[in-house]
Amino acid sequence: MSEPIRVTVWGENVHEREEEHVRALYPDGMHAAIASSLTVLLGDRVSVRTATLDEPQHGLTDAVLAQTDVLTWWGHTAHDRVDDGIVDRVHAAVLGGVGLLALHSAHYSKIFQRLLGTSCSLRWRNDGERELVWTVDPAHPIAAGVPHPIVIDAHEMYGEHFDIPAPDELVFVSSFAGGEVFRGGCCFRRGAGRIFYFSPGDQDYPIYHQPDVQRVIANAVEWAAPGPEVPRAVPDSPMAPRDWFA
Amino acid sequence: MSEPIRVTVWGENVHEREEEHVRALYPDGMHAAIASSLTVLLGDRVSVRTATLDEPQHGLTDAVLAQTDVLTWWGHTAHDRVDDGIVDRVHAAVLGGVGLLALHSAHYSKIFQRLLGTSCSLRWRNDGERELVWTVDPAHPIAAGVPHPIVIDAHEMYGEHFDIPAPDELVFVSSFAGGEVFRGGCCFRRGAGRIFYFSPGDQDYPIYHQPDVQRVIANAVEWAAPGPEVPRAVPDSPMAPRDWFA
Amino acid sequence: MSEPIRVTVWGENVHEREEEHVRALYPDGMHAAIASSLTVLLGDRVSVRTATLDEPQHGLTDAVLAQTDVLTWWGHTAHDRVDDGIVDRVHAAVLGGVGLLALHSAHYSKIFQRLLGTSCSLRWRNDGERELVWTVDPAHPIAAGVPHPIVIDAHEMYGEHFDIPAPDELVFVSSFAGGEVFRGGCCFRRGAGRIFYFSPGDQDYPIYHQPDVQRVIANAVEWAAPGPEVPRAVPDSPMAPRDWFA
Amino acid sequence: MSEPIRVTVWGENVHEREEEHVRALYPDGMHAAIASSLTVLLGDRVSVRTATLDEPQHGLTDAVLAQTDVLTWWGHTAHDRVDDGIVDRVHAAVLGGVGLLALHSAHYSKIFQRLLGTSCSLRWRNDGERELVWTVDPAHPIAAGVPHPIVIDAHEMYGEHFDIPAPDELVFVSSFAGGEVFRGGCCFRRGAGRIFYFSPGDQDYPIYHQPDVQRVIANAVEWAAPGPEVPRAVPDSPMAPRDWFA
Repeated sequence: MSEPIRVTVWGENVHEREEEHVRALYPDGMHAAIASSLTVLLGDRVSVRTATLDEPQHGLTDAVLAQTDVLTWWGHTAHDRVDDGIVDRVHAAVLGGVGLLALHSAHYSKIFQRLLGTSCSLRWRNDGERELVWTVDPAHPIAAGVPHPIVIDAHEMYGEHFDIPAPDELVFVSSFAGGEVFRGGCCFRRGAGRIFYFSPGDQDYPIYHQPDVQRVIANAVEWAAPGPEVPRAVPDSPMAPRDWFA
Repeated sequence: MSEPIRVTVWGENVHEREEEHVRALYPDGMHAAIASSLTVLLGDRVSVRTATLDEPQHGLTDAVLAQTDVLTWWGHTAHDRVDDGIVDRVHAAVLGGVGLLALHSAHYSKIFQRLLGTSCSLRWRNDGERELVWTVDPAHPIAAGVPHPIVIDAHEMYGEHFDIPAPDELVFVSSFAGGEVFRGGCCFRRGAGRIFYFSPGDQDYPIYHQPDVQRVIANAVEWAAPGPEVPRAVPDSPMAPRDWFA
Repeated sequence: MSEPIRVTVWGENVHEREEEHVRALYPDGMHAAIASSLTVLLGDRVSVRTATLDEPQHGLTDAVLAQTDVLTWWGHTAHDRVDDGIVDRVHAAVLGGVGLLALHSAHYSKIFQRLLGTSCSLRWRNDGERELVWTVDPAHPIAAGVPHPIVIDAHEMYGEHFDIPAPDELVFVSSFAGGEVFRGGCCFRRGAGRIFYFSPGDQDYPIYHQPDVQRVIANAVEWAAPGPEVPRAVPDSPMAPRDWFA
Repeated sequence: MSEPIRVTVWGENVHEREEEHVRALYPDGMHAAIASSLTVLLGDRVSVRTATLDEPQHGLTDAVLAQTDVLTWWGHTAHDRVDDGIVDRVHAAVLGGVGLLALHSAHYSKIFQRLLGTSCSLRWRNDGERELVWTVDPAHPIAAGVPHPIVIDAHEMYGEHFDIPAPDELVFVSSFAGGEVFRGGCCFRRGAGRIFYFSPGDQDYPIYHQPDVQRVIANAVEWAAPGPEVPRAVPDSPMAPRDWFA
């Protein structure tokens, strides 16, 4: 696979502009931090661009999506400001083979709900407590080179019940100091697209600067990229002739 | 479980009114035939009503859904006439525990696509050919008492690729005289609801009069009914206090 | 389902006889406590017997298995004293439809390993720490009426990685005071049989006297019982005639 | 992934030596044909050796397995001549990360049954009928570049019910001229190892000379090869200290 994986890192980019303590952590936005870490870790195996909510069409034009192999998505406070037509477009792209990484509060994004079909609700508590991210599938490529557990010193708690379909592959389960557990690393396959949900990454904590977390996201980008022969269109519903094989 | 399962059999009821050869097969509509077979096969274990597209709110008022344990859905030519608000309501009901049986061309219904998140496209050919419905999970309750295979003398072909998420349980796989195969009996769990897709049942053939097919649908109604302790509300996203278990 | 479910509660019954602190918790053996709780909770919906390692054929004669719908299994220190021929017999029974509940350290029993095909290894630490058992599938019948979480004040830690095949259904995930997580409530389907692994129940703690735990086991007995039409034989490999359906 | 995948193609090699019509199809044995096709298709991405039943230790010494990334297995008439100790060794190797391709009648091999835990029985009829191999997961790497369907002009029929655990991924479903269907392309993950069962390949037909079939096997070799960071040992059951993360 000599061609680089074309990654579009999408960021809502609201907290980073409006809240000083978030801006202190991510002066250029979380999307910039994620994009940078992918380039550092994956080098010429990726070609990374970013896009944000406030750009025209949220930066997700047909042209951009046509040149995207994997899309990462971070949103939280402005899910409802994402245009439904753009959600339709991203939905079609994922069914057509574009990989999607839904990060942290993207569990409530329109695109994640659209793809999964459930409420994607969960328990939460933002109290800066220790999260341990345990690997339950050590041979999974997304877990390659990841410590067992990843220790996140302070994070928002996300806990069960997480209202998602049963994941096609469950990679990570977190525990929190308060005792909760969470299926925080889940793979789904929808159409020709691969989807990975990864729960670490609240805007109040410097989690995307943590090397272990960056490694998971880089692994997931490589896992979610479509192979060269994956069909890149949403399948239609063809009428088959009577003697197609004669 | 002494209380009967409350079943609402929903029918689009367009072909039956507009096409004479369909009306000949189902003079009171396919929904009536399905409803009748459930009552015959399950007796006082069910309480069955019907609802159709042309009724106010498609017959699916809040009151009706509140008294529904399992909803069966047949639609084809008028998917786009189903009101989006009603789809939202049914979607919430299924996530809240109402069982859903999606029958034949309901693979393209708004509610099925909403719950599964994929295009649900497939191959097809309406040429009246023999379908064999094979059980791939003989211990599954939906397959209880069902011949292996069910022989349907003439039916529309539905073939792979069927663009659905991997089913949580695969019960039946069909072959057709033309050589195609189809995952025609698939279970999905979404939220608190159980969903069963069953492919036999094109309007041009008397399939819902066939006892084996009726038996599958009756089994599926019993399988999809929520237990008495299943929560009947879409979960919200509660904030959990710090010391909830102290 | 008017016939009672015939349950055989199998206990290794070694710790209870040889260690005074275990005998103090379970004077008649853990099997007796489990059997008693099933009768109390399920009443005439079950008919319960017990069997132990030291009985002839470990109490699992052909006659007993032929009259067993669900077998529960607790073993720990004497896995290697279980006769391979009896394991073969139980294996065939499960494939033929007998439900199996593998309890706590039965993860390392011959029958569980035989059915799952993996090492079934895990992390452990017996330090009497708090375990919280969270429901990740609230609509699952095994979770009916179970608090979220079940709080076990003191237990042996079992932690990931648990080397099992991906469960067909994941019902419970535990956390421990030490921070570990564990997929402690897992469903598997093998042949015509349903298998439920449930991790609570170390011999050093009075866990089988805890009502919530008893409730889970009772629910699992009802879930694992074969339906009246489940085939009760291991399938053979039949030659099919050329024109079987002609 | 610059290192070649080390493949060991194992063949029972009995039919080829004892039956003239099989020898005519595979003068050097089916294993030689499979090995050759892998080298042709994958070039320097693989390093292929063969091993057969009659070699000491069936050619599967500790040294050979230690240098094997993917093992393909064809057996039929002599499953019971495979030494149990060698089966133990291969079982440990697969749990430790070695990929396994179980081909055709290897559904009844000791190693496949050991890994899956079920009888692996099926229906069959050797009547030289047309098989169509349909892709049900077009984005799966094992299906890359494979026609839909693969047409095999004459083959032994394998039909449902196939007594296997639900596959972790279902890639292909076949139909036969006689009307049966078969889940003939199934992925399983056990321990750190990936397993692919592929049903085409009866000794009476020149199926391993067919380019489409060769392509599937080559794809599966690449899919089943462990990543560079997959642990290559069967996990043990470690005691974890109380304050491991302190």
